[in-house]
Amino acid sequence: MILGAIEAGGTKFVCAIGNERGEVLERVSFPTTTPEETMKKVVDFFNGKEIISMGVGSFGPIDPNKHSPTYGYITTTPKPYWGNYNILGELKKHFKVPMEFDTDVNGAALGELKWGAAKGLSSALYITVGTGIGAGAVVEGEMINGLLHPEMGHIYVRRHPEDTYEGSCPYHGDCLEGLAAGPAIEARWGIKGDMLPVDHEAWDMEAYYLAQALVNYILILSPEKIIMGGGVMKQQQLFPKIRDYVQEILKSYIAKEELASKIDEYILYPELGDNAGICGALALALTALNN
Amino acid sequence: MILGAIEAGGTKFVCAIGNERGEVLERVSFPTTTPEETMKKVVDFFNGKEIISMGVGSFGPIDPNKHSPTYGYITTTPKPYWGNYNILGELKKHFKVPMEFDTDVNGAALGELKWGAAKGLSSALYITVGTGIGAGAVVEGEMINGLLHPEMGHIYVRRHPEDTYEGSCPYHGDCLEGLAAGPAIEARWGIKGDMLPVDHEAWDMEAYYLAQALVNYILILSPEKIIMGGGVMKQQQLFPKIRDYVQEILKSYIAKEELASKIDEYILYPELGDNAGICGALALALTALNN
Repeated sequence: MILGAIEAGGTKFVCAIGNERGEVLERVSFPTTTPEETMKKVVDFFNGKEIISMGVGSFGPIDPNKHSPTYGYITTTPKPYWGNYNILGELKKHFKVPMEFDTDVNGAALGELKWGAAKGLSSALYITVGTGIGAGAVVEGEMINGLLHPEMGHIYVRRHPEDTYEGSCPYHGDCLEGLAAGPAIEARWGIKGDMLPVDHEAWDMEAYYLAQALVNYILILSPEKIIMGGGVMKQQQLFPKIRDYVQEILKSYIAKEELASKIDEYILYPELGDNAGICGALALALTALNN
Repeated sequence: MILGAIEAGGTKFVCAIGNERGEVLERVSFPTTTPEETMKKVVDFFNGKEIISMGVGSFGPIDPNKHSPTYGYITTTPKPYWGNYNILGELKKHFKVPMEFDTDVNGAALGELKWGAAKGLSSALYITVGTGIGAGAVVEGEMINGLLHPEMGHIYVRRHPEDTYEGSCPYHGDCLEGLAAGPAIEARWGIKGDMLPVDHEAWDMEAYYLAQALVNYILILSPEKIIMGGGVMKQQQLFPKIRDYVQEILKSYIAKEELASKIDEYILYPELGDNAGICGALALALTALNN
């Protein structure tokens, strides 16, 4: 059973074939340039591969609503050339297999649920903290869509009392992404995050912001597991700080051991590591097959 | 087809029988006292009524996890006598029909989806603003449970710059419930909300807090409709203010007409009005039948 997977990122595309056990058998990646150029490479990779279905986890915003005339489009992205681009339509011209299309982060949540840190559960939240902040979630086995899809990176959190940085989100200024994504860290401290010492005060502030977001996600979505990936989360010193702040902010309001003695197993780095995204797309391919 | 419905509130219980069209045929309500006294009245009401299933929408926190040993319990409530009370177990002693148990607000979201303002959609969020603030949601046709169930009333929002009130939540101080539930309005202004003039500045501040919460719910859950009920929301002047603030805070980030020209139909008072809660329990009874 050969499945096709595409992790369509704003910076790079990853294409892979894999199987129903979440194993990646072959992969390729290349920078995201124009749709014409990029999609040609995608088509070239899959040509002749005999895939039986395809999953696409994409940067957004996208239209994931199967009943909508623009289903399968990347919609209002500010990324040049990609606004209102029918990515799924382009793929369907070349490959006559069932396809599933969702956000990269909804896919990653599904992948971790199938094969990773949330295996066996019925809900999980996946958040990536990198150039931007995005999160997706699976609830009762279903990915969250609805009016659009989650855009959890843009929620508002309270400002740290010592933070004077105005925020970098072009829409909202100091929303979560504006305060805590990689570019905000660099702009605030004048140096890239991965050049900062692990005991720098930046990480405490970062944990404070991310923990507030997690508390809101917990209170609103009640996920059984929270998985945190992306470039910034490679700073492993963040995890204990985030867990401590989550407990401090929630104040034992939710009486579950996952938020008390077992919090180390509740807020985690992706078990699929750097494969979380592409395995997410593989999980979407499996969904396409089952639908 | 006669369905049994119980809206188990912390202040009063409502019991009703109704049908699969959401019509309430007979109802009774009484104050919530001890479990013994209260449940006896519940049992007396349903005895001899020939119901074919029963739905229970309860105040919380509850355990809605069917695989848990304490499924059907009201768990860590501070309400005297009701902590760790097996409400579903008590009902099962008396009535041998399929039962469904969830939070009152998850039930209300389901009821509005079946028969009310969100009819025909696959997702909706219901928030009640009264003595406390609670919210429930249906996503892809399923009520949200998971680690526990949503406790959306306790998320944190940013403080209004002119608000000096410290907040009334016994757990979190100035979380949303602590700043915007009925008791907070009364404590801040020294007078009950329904005695304040409709043009009092209190309503602008109230709208500011509720709108922030709605923005977070939209970004995290992406519901197709938001329904706002409860005593405080009887102040109809709040609705236009809340809609304006939601647009101001989101800054057109989500390009959907529901959040632009059609926001009057997106954020609404319950179509089922004061019946939202009991109809929610009726919807749960229907779910029990279908499972």
